[in-house]
Amino acid sequence: MKKDEKKIYPLPSIRRLPLYLNYLRKIHEENISGTVIAEALDILPIQVRKDLAITNVTGKPKVGFNVKELKKAIEHCLGWNNLNDAFLIGAGHFGQALLGYKKFRDHGLNIVAVFDKDEDKVGTDIFGYKIFPVEKLNNLIQRMKVKIGIITTPGSTAQELADTMIEAGVLGIWNFTPATLNVPENIVVENVRLVSSLSVLTSKLKQQI
Amino acid sequence: MKKDEKKIYPLPSIRRLPLYLNYLRKIHEENISGTVIAEALDILPIQVRKDLAITNVTGKPKVGFNVKELKKAIEHCLGWNNLNDAFLIGAGHFGQALLGYKKFRDHGLNIVAVFDKDEDKVGTDIFGYKIFPVEKLNNLIQRMKVKIGIITTPGSTAQELADTMIEAGVLGIWNFTPATLNVPENIVVENVRLVSSLSVLTSKLKQQI
Repeated sequence: MKKDEKKIYPLPSIRRLPLYLNYLRKIHEENISGTVIAEALDILPIQVRKDLAITNVTGKPKVGFNVKELKKAIEHCLGWNNLNDAFLIGAGHFGQALLGYKKFRDHGLNIVAVFDKDEDKVGTDIFGYKIFPVEKLNNLIQRMKVKIGIITTPGSTAQELADTMIEAGVLGIWNFTPATLNVPENIVVENVRLVSSLSVLTSKLKQQI
Repeated sequence: MKKDEKKIYPLPSIRRLPLYLNYLRKIHEENISGTVIAEALDILPIQVRKDLAITNVTGKPKVGFNVKELKKAIEHCLGWNNLNDAFLIGAGHFGQALLGYKKFRDHGLNIVAVFDKDEDKVGTDIFGYKIFPVEKLNNLIQRMKVKIGIITTPGSTAQELADTMIEAGVLGIWNFTPATLNVPENIVVENVRLVSSLSVLTSKLKQQI
């Protein structure tokens, strides 16, 4: 069963769905054709059809997709139809940047509390978020039934934090640290590896120069 | 010629090279075996051998790799043997987070100046970086021969900034905006799409819950 579900959610398509959603949220038409979407986003029409097929919404000949229906279906695919409550751990530069980016709410993410181990930061406010000590992480995850943890600490503390959060009930971790996390099979980890991204840029550039 | 070079630099391996380099920088041994590296980083030994093969450094039987030689070769592959000067455009939350992350210098990236179009920010200092008006971008890129531009502005201004930078001589763009940039074939663009990453996390999570 799970394998089937995964089959209809290919990751490259999932990664592109926010692009479509962003576009659909901006237009005012009631219906739109795949070709128009393809042109606007500079994606091949056949790719657009394939990507949107995972939403199970089918366009009508000569009319295209119903915009409202398609938006809803994309949000459903992405799990953005309900806001996902999340805790953020690490109120450093990157943590603060994520807190400052208010638009995550449009993308289904609702950061509800921030944690740090630095006693000087605990109790202070950042962008309206009060900072809690990491010792309260386990208790608050259980009480608030939070399922997503965002780790923006140094890599050295990431595994321990992940263990704590998973034990308390977190099912998904957005990992901004360079650490490779060891987690049980049912836990979803999505890594944002800036240094890997930078290495692709500089190594390609080296070949150009 | 270029095709051959690209063949020996497969991107998944390139993305992992910083992991190896980070590990090698921390250890004090003179030589190390691929098996030990594999175990420490929780990567399959066969994968380690394949990844490190692109450096053209070969380990000796029973001795392993010379650590110093391997570090140098990885840095060379990544273009990190020389610091890459870069301009950062957009002194918002994300821009500031990148400026605050001093370790980019260990990864070959040297941010030399920061630009913003906000007149209130221009002339002020962030982490010791003076902020210049975007109008000076073209001139300073040419004068300082900067080859990398990092864009952390809103997506709506990204294409125009990319055009300006490329015209002035920039060859690589690290794009943190959601915009899809249209650039000439010889220009390298590496996108960091946080929203795409988030969509992978939430859609997988939806399948777990």
